[in-house]
Amino acid sequence: MQLGMIGLGRMGANMVQRLTKGGHECVAYDVQAKAVKAVLHPGLVGASSLKDLVAKLHQPRVVWLMLPAAAVDEALAMLAPLLDAGDIIIDGGNSYYRDDIRRGTEMKSRQIHYVDVGTSGGVAGFERGYCLMIGGEKEVVAHLAPIFATLAPGVEAVPLTAGRQKPDSTAEQGYLHCGPQGAGHFVKMVHNGIEYGIMGAYAEGLNILRNANVGKQKSDTDAETTPLRNPEYYQYELDLPEIAELWRRGSVIGSWLLDLTASALLNDPTLENYAGRVSDSGEGRWTITAAIDEAVPAPILSAALYARFSSRGDADFADKVLSAMRHGFGGHLEKAAKRQQD
Amino acid sequence: MQLGMIGLGRMGANMVQRLTKGGHECVAYDVQAKAVKAVLHPGLVGASSLKDLVAKLHQPRVVWLMLPAAAVDEALAMLAPLLDAGDIIIDGGNSYYRDDIRRGTEMKSRQIHYVDVGTSGGVAGFERGYCLMIGGEKEVVAHLAPIFATLAPGVEAVPLTAGRQKPDSTAEQGYLHCGPQGAGHFVKMVHNGIEYGIMGAYAEGLNILRNANVGKQKSDTDAETTPLRNPEYYQYELDLPEIAELWRRGSVIGSWLLDLTASALLNDPTLENYAGRVSDSGEGRWTITAAIDEAVPAPILSAALYARFSSRGDADFADKVLSAMRHGFGGHLEKAAKRQQD
Amino acid sequence: MQLGMIGLGRMGANMVQRLTKGGHECVAYDVQAKAVKAVLHPGLVGASSLKDLVAKLHQPRVVWLMLPAAAVDEALAMLAPLLDAGDIIIDGGNSYYRDDIRRGTEMKSRQIHYVDVGTSGGVAGFERGYCLMIGGEKEVVAHLAPIFATLAPGVEAVPLTAGRQKPDSTAEQGYLHCGPQGAGHFVKMVHNGIEYGIMGAYAEGLNILRNANVGKQKSDTDAETTPLRNPEYYQYELDLPEIAELWRRGSVIGSWLLDLTASALLNDPTLENYAGRVSDSGEGRWTITAAIDEAVPAPILSAALYARFSSRGDADFADKVLSAMRHGFGGHLEKAAKRQQD
Amino acid sequence: MQLGMIGLGRMGANMVQRLTKGGHECVAYDVQAKAVKAVLHPGLVGASSLKDLVAKLHQPRVVWLMLPAAAVDEALAMLAPLLDAGDIIIDGGNSYYRDDIRRGTEMKSRQIHYVDVGTSGGVAGFERGYCLMIGGEKEVVAHLAPIFATLAPGVEAVPLTAGRQKPDSTAEQGYLHCGPQGAGHFVKMVHNGIEYGIMGAYAEGLNILRNANVGKQKSDTDAETTPLRNPEYYQYELDLPEIAELWRRGSVIGSWLLDLTASALLNDPTLENYAGRVSDSGEGRWTITAAIDEAVPAPILSAALYARFSSRGDADFADKVLSAMRHGFGGHLEKAAKRQQD
Repeated sequence: MQLGMIGLGRMGANMVQRLTKGGHECVAYDVQAKAVKAVLHPGLVGASSLKDLVAKLHQPRVVWLMLPAAAVDEALAMLAPLLDAGDIIIDGGNSYYRDDIRRGTEMKSRQIHYVDVGTSGGVAGFERGYCLMIGGEKEVVAHLAPIFATLAPGVEAVPLTAGRQKPDSTAEQGYLHCGPQGAGHFVKMVHNGIEYGIMGAYAEGLNILRNANVGKQKSDTDAETTPLRNPEYYQYELDLPEIAELWRRGSVIGSWLLDLTASALLNDPTLENYAGRVSDSGEGRWTITAAIDEAVPAPILSAALYARFSSRGDADFADKVLSAMRHGFGGHLEKAAKRQQD
Repeated sequence: MQLGMIGLGRMGANMVQRLTKGGHECVAYDVQAKAVKAVLHPGLVGASSLKDLVAKLHQPRVVWLMLPAAAVDEALAMLAPLLDAGDIIIDGGNSYYRDDIRRGTEMKSRQIHYVDVGTSGGVAGFERGYCLMIGGEKEVVAHLAPIFATLAPGVEAVPLTAGRQKPDSTAEQGYLHCGPQGAGHFVKMVHNGIEYGIMGAYAEGLNILRNANVGKQKSDTDAETTPLRNPEYYQYELDLPEIAELWRRGSVIGSWLLDLTASALLNDPTLENYAGRVSDSGEGRWTITAAIDEAVPAPILSAALYARFSSRGDADFADKVLSAMRHGFGGHLEKAAKRQQD
Repeated sequence: MQLGMIGLGRMGANMVQRLTKGGHECVAYDVQAKAVKAVLHPGLVGASSLKDLVAKLHQPRVVWLMLPAAAVDEALAMLAPLLDAGDIIIDGGNSYYRDDIRRGTEMKSRQIHYVDVGTSGGVAGFERGYCLMIGGEKEVVAHLAPIFATLAPGVEAVPLTAGRQKPDSTAEQGYLHCGPQGAGHFVKMVHNGIEYGIMGAYAEGLNILRNANVGKQKSDTDAETTPLRNPEYYQYELDLPEIAELWRRGSVIGSWLLDLTASALLNDPTLENYAGRVSDSGEGRWTITAAIDEAVPAPILSAALYARFSSRGDADFADKVLSAMRHGFGGHLEKAAKRQQD
Repeated sequence: MQLGMIGLGRMGANMVQRLTKGGHECVAYDVQAKAVKAVLHPGLVGASSLKDLVAKLHQPRVVWLMLPAAAVDEALAMLAPLLDAGDIIIDGGNSYYRDDIRRGTEMKSRQIHYVDVGTSGGVAGFERGYCLMIGGEKEVVAHLAPIFATLAPGVEAVPLTAGRQKPDSTAEQGYLHCGPQGAGHFVKMVHNGIEYGIMGAYAEGLNILRNANVGKQKSDTDAETTPLRNPEYYQYELDLPEIAELWRRGSVIGSWLLDLTASALLNDPTLENYAGRVSDSGEGRWTITAAIDEAVPAPILSAALYARFSSRGDADFADKVLSAMRHGFGGHLEKAAKRQQD
């Protein structure tokens, strides 16, 4: 099948390679000409402009956008007028599903089909395949099946769930039509919200393991410090890289995120190469917004999001309010930081 | 009534003054002789040693300890042998109620009565009176009523709850026998746990108000930054000192902690005199321990405690784990800190 | 000053009474004629329709809406065409501040001034006065000062914060112009978010106190039940109504919400008249939305909101997922509920 | 190697089978004779009593306890007098690591070696192998290596972490000597704490997906119900069993717990066979206790624990306090439950 790819960053560049390797014909474009040049290989045609890309595609055209969420509207505004009725646009980036609903309506007025695809897999996706969560018109999604099947990991990626007998389901191959416009990015949004929660669970647990030696440390004895009542219970020097590697085998908490953690700890056991300022790219926030709109309690996913905010200093003023109150009622003065660079 | 006070810090020094002003006869001792000197005034007798203090008290003696929690066991070890059967020791500090249970048993073997008193009121207590949460033997607590009545704020401190007709209750005066040994400090422990939660609620809310102008700030447009979708909704420059003062009148969230917050913001509207490293003195932790032992959910009180931990840098390693994972699956690099001094 | 009041529920009815008592001239209207009849008293004129209300007001008219948030847009649509340029509409209910921004713009196109007022005080406001958080044009707000001053509690409601010398500030009287359109309801929204947090802190703490007797209960000894390791530490039967009354005097956690709690516990010590299905009226949700948009961590305020969701059964499906997983990896079967009516 | 197994429940019975299959000689005992009978097979010798078991083992004996945590102390008290100096006891159950420290000291006074092993893997462990977290004396643990190697999944269970070159490490095989007495169960405790967090993240996310259709539901319009502002964004009927299956392939959140979830949803898409009363078996609580002792923030792991408490009705009284307060300040009456069977 033929497909035009717009956006050749880490994700888009890998995806066109996986597609051409799978026998599809790709036309690739990026605003940066050198990004196009970098991906050129047999089976892949470069485009020098949106117009050039559109010209090189047969009707009904299939154009996949793999762009930062903030760039999608502008790209659509330029692309849509170049397309014809019946063409298909796929937004495979991290768009907010509410934008999909709006854009789908806009495109429909031009008789262009709009499909939203939440794409998980990260930089490893080229080899492992991508997990695709898809929203849009049923027939259009069915038409694109060959593309999705190539991008997805395939049924043999993991053992089938025992007892499943759904030969028509594509979930087993790693892609799924989740519902109408926006459904793909809605499911991807919640997927990322869960991801934040799982990541945070490991992070908190590893932090507890790392501090299992606090009983060995001499603590201050002033009124501003809670003494550790049972230092004898916190005398362990635990080897985090080894424990992460261990848990990968046979434990209940094995996962791909744990695999990545084991790898990171192997290369940098104290993670001193990181400052611990954790970005968030929107989906975690939108997940909480959805939870609140639905009146669904989401304390874990919220805590995971807030930990990222706090890591960037966004709790500082609140903390100052607490110190000011403590000074007010108890005359407590703040303790100086013990650690200079922490 | 006669009472010996051991420990003349911010709390103890104020309390003996309130007691002598109320007509009681106090003998005061502190390991630092100058602390004794500083509180001397008509009606107050100084003691030069524990032995001297004990000698100056009539039997059955009443000795009140107002010491840091970590110093109580040592003081008891020195004091108890100097006392006689029937004497009374009161621990009015911030002891863990589990220590009260142990100490009560130890003192009982010497026929000394042990009473635990959770004392709230802070540095303002001298004028406002102290809220006293009391654990111990019923008759002993009853015997000490004149002391408690003087230290407590009294019935006129706030309007009586409508419909109350409990003339025998001392709660209305501001002191209460809560139960056997440890009950006083148990109730005080939970009191402080609640205090953390209330303080944190104000702190979070004020932080949200303070950032109501984020729509005016130019944000980065890279993939590591979630763009604000509706900057037009965050254009407010709110005057926090005025709002805190406002809320003190007629609002549902009026409280003494709000009064203190209004005062702190008046004197330092941006709280730049504080670094935001918030100590915790044990009760918040013990409250969570109790909640968990009882299987009572305490998400708010826990969140308040964790905010204090995080304010001291104790989440840093967990944050680094998150950054390391993000780098692992998405190739994300951390963003440098935007703010130098925040 | 003359004012038209639309909406004579619990809040509106009390407010017109406070206003006429303060010397203002009120014209009152409600869709339910008997609500109008119920509030009629000297100084108060009833209106039989919106048109009648408008006719009875002098220009520039001042009309105060005290309606459920969901009814405001419809009321505005009917009212605005009846008004003249220069008239003033005040929305004193619990509107979302984003609606204020929209409505203010709509009214501006008709040359009608729009003022949003967050009103706190509840049913007690008639006597205590109302805390008013105001958004809108500066001159218009200034023009309305006599109304606000009468509704607010006044400077003597609580002692002035020590050191304040802001004779021009109205915060001390209990009303404040917080900023442009929406600022009043923004501040009120966060006020309510804080309120949820404070309420939740008391609720969790009281729950911990109530369960201080778990050590007396016989617990199951099967593998699905965590045994209490130290039952000797949980032997207290605490008297919650007395403790709540006690804390009202001299403690750090005294507040109006505590006063209400003491009153509720006095009348119903086990609160058996309540089922514990806690509603939320929107502001708590919007506060979290604002926190997330601003990237401000709000774990306490979120936990308070989620507790309400959970109280209504909204966590049930998530809980079933947990049970299903436990069955999957450990063969664990759910324990039957121990308590029938709990 | 020869090993005596005490306790032939779900875990112990599977483990002796895996051991004999791996060439070890097992002597098996359970208080229930029929449990012994049930596991008998070639290579496995049954014992009719502790004494019989001890008699059938060569010195230095190796005895593995696989018992409920509450039964270990009693078993040790009966077993230890039957053993000789140099014998080895392994506690492979879910003991609290603090008990290991105490027991290790007690056994040392009898010159018996004590080893604690946190065992993960659940009922699937017989086939997948068990992840073993081990605490105790270095030489003793080394002596037991053949046992651990057979129980563990082995190095080929998952691909080796890229770049690892630690031929002496046993983590790659799925077992690890984590440190002195208690270290094994400490690491297992945190492992389970993380497990709670991960489970909760999936559960919350699936609950959000399940409610993506709330925009289709007619909601009440009274003051006690927050209206959904944008019902058009919540019109999705998502197929949870398919989505769980989908995420198993190529997504960032793939894990064994997700595999189990997909299986559970396949068999019971609405999980109506579960009531959602989620037990907790201690490790989650102990993890939070450790976090608090170490001053490490653990909001996610705490939220996961509290969700379980709440699922069992333990927040009910706190919820009633909230309803009582709301009635106090706003005259709000509780809404009746909408759903009968939820």
